[in-house]
Amino acid sequence: MKTTLRQLGERGLIALLKRRLPRGRDVRIGIGDDCAAVQIGRGAAGRLLLLKTDAVVEGVHFNRRATPFQIGWKAMARPLSDFAAMAGRPRWALVTASLREEMPVRFVREIYRGLASAADKFGVTIVGGETVRTPDRFWLSVALAGEVEPRAMKLRSGAHVNDAIFVTGALGGSIAGKHLKFTPRIAEAQWLARQGCVGAMIDISDGLARDLGHICRESGVSACLAKSAIPIAPAAGGSLRRALRDGEDFELLFTVPSARSAKLKRAWCKKFPRLRLSLIGFILCGKGIRLVDDAGQWQDLDEDGYDHFQAHHA
Amino acid sequence: MKTTLRQLGERGLIALLKRRLPRGRDVRIGIGDDCAAVQIGRGAAGRLLLLKTDAVVEGVHFNRRATPFQIGWKAMARPLSDFAAMAGRPRWALVTASLREEMPVRFVREIYRGLASAADKFGVTIVGGETVRTPDRFWLSVALAGEVEPRAMKLRSGAHVNDAIFVTGALGGSIAGKHLKFTPRIAEAQWLARQGCVGAMIDISDGLARDLGHICRESGVSACLAKSAIPIAPAAGGSLRRALRDGEDFELLFTVPSARSAKLKRAWCKKFPRLRLSLIGFILCGKGIRLVDDAGQWQDLDEDGYDHFQAHHA
Repeated sequence: MKTTLRQLGERGLIALLKRRLPRGRDVRIGIGDDCAAVQIGRGAAGRLLLLKTDAVVEGVHFNRRATPFQIGWKAMARPLSDFAAMAGRPRWALVTASLREEMPVRFVREIYRGLASAADKFGVTIVGGETVRTPDRFWLSVALAGEVEPRAMKLRSGAHVNDAIFVTGALGGSIAGKHLKFTPRIAEAQWLARQGCVGAMIDISDGLARDLGHICRESGVSACLAKSAIPIAPAAGGSLRRALRDGEDFELLFTVPSARSAKLKRAWCKKFPRLRLSLIGFILCGKGIRLVDDAGQWQDLDEDGYDHFQAHHA
Repeated sequence: MKTTLRQLGERGLIALLKRRLPRGRDVRIGIGDDCAAVQIGRGAAGRLLLLKTDAVVEGVHFNRRATPFQIGWKAMARPLSDFAAMAGRPRWALVTASLREEMPVRFVREIYRGLASAADKFGVTIVGGETVRTPDRFWLSVALAGEVEPRAMKLRSGAHVNDAIFVTGALGGSIAGKHLKFTPRIAEAQWLARQGCVGAMIDISDGLARDLGHICRESGVSACLAKSAIPIAPAAGGSLRRALRDGEDFELLFTVPSARSAKLKRAWCKKFPRLRLSLIGFILCGKGIRLVDDAGQWQDLDEDGYDHFQAHHA
């Protein structure tokens, strides 16, 4: 077999690994959701631990225009956003930094200031890590550990027919700058989980179409989106296509039973008056995602978002 | 300030980060030991969680002669060895793989077979991770989480004057092959912790001289080594210098009160008849490490082992 990773694609690789890697006891959520969730201790003393790693690579996730502070911030904020997706409480981080020997110490200090600043804002302590030298492009990998209330944990698989679909903030054009300074929606996600009505949740990292596709596939449902309801960020220049497909928005996408949606929206506006919350569509039975315009015309939406091995980015 | 990382060195960088990064509550062991140890839950329900990340980079930790299975094995076995150093029980792993798009899927599958094989042998489940594409050298980063009995946990700082210094296996020349297929001393470390007499413990990754230096510094003691007692691996070609300085032996180095050393050695030989255990010296007060020959001549040993930003390796 001569297949390369480019031909297999990232999703193909994940499917292959999921099939081959053994699943352990005490693993509540393994490969395929935003974080892994594992059981530590049993009975009343049992807790649910969340684990996540994420890496940023020079030339892939940031370029030379990014400041070292921003690079550090982004490296920490990305896995924090995955914690938000599961309504988890991040607590400890390990940082692996692969650096070039000729880097100024000042530059490296600024990277760590960005890392520590994002960690501190969300109650995370950097407890260790390591440094590795590299002769070429540098990268940072952050491993996060934390906890989640078992009943509060949100998964991609929790969507039900007739749920309303909500998204926070506005979408698209993150590459213009937001991807280096976004705020992980930790506080919002924990508040949402406490409302007791959220079904599925995910953070938008691969683009709305793709991430909604993850929810639909994992929940065994389809989705219908109202074209005019999708919040387009100014940086997307009015392009609905970019709002649907651009990656790295790091907003929350979640579902709520339709009957609860109006009340949730009201409570949200009171609690988070400065962060937009949009009802963008509904969960239906079947497969796939449809986009409907105000005249009732619909089109199927393919999920072609960002695939690490098939497309280029940033 | 125009200092580069090369001038600062790895130890300087760690000292700088240790000074600058805030230390959180619930952090029992932060930056500077083999793993981080954090408190999860309180009182009787409290547990001590160990966290560790470690990365291997093409051209630094392995070259083109290494098989993909060996690369995967080594990537998992290195942080496992850090768990051994603290007598911890590793349980869950996250794997970040930065791969080239033109890599054959077969090659990647073999890497993961190596990772899974090492994980499985030591009771670890791979629960997630991610893949990132890279245009140049590829790397793997493994984050491990697990537990340790608070009373069983071993630190670098636990050595006392008059302790005997023991080392497992034989040292030096790991680069000839052992570094790709070594066995982390997880079982041995847990058995040692149960004997209730081990003071300090560390795994030898930077070379005997340097890692013993870590123990001495953290414990505020000095060490005296008997030249003739140091076990030299065949791969080191009879070179004491290599046994003292070569990295990546991944053997256990630990201290035991002198009065307990004979009994411990007997119990070890019964329990692990195929793995050599050598008493190589004693802990004294003061600073530094001395090497003594059979005639009673001594010399000071500098710790110049392996520094990621100052020396080249592999």
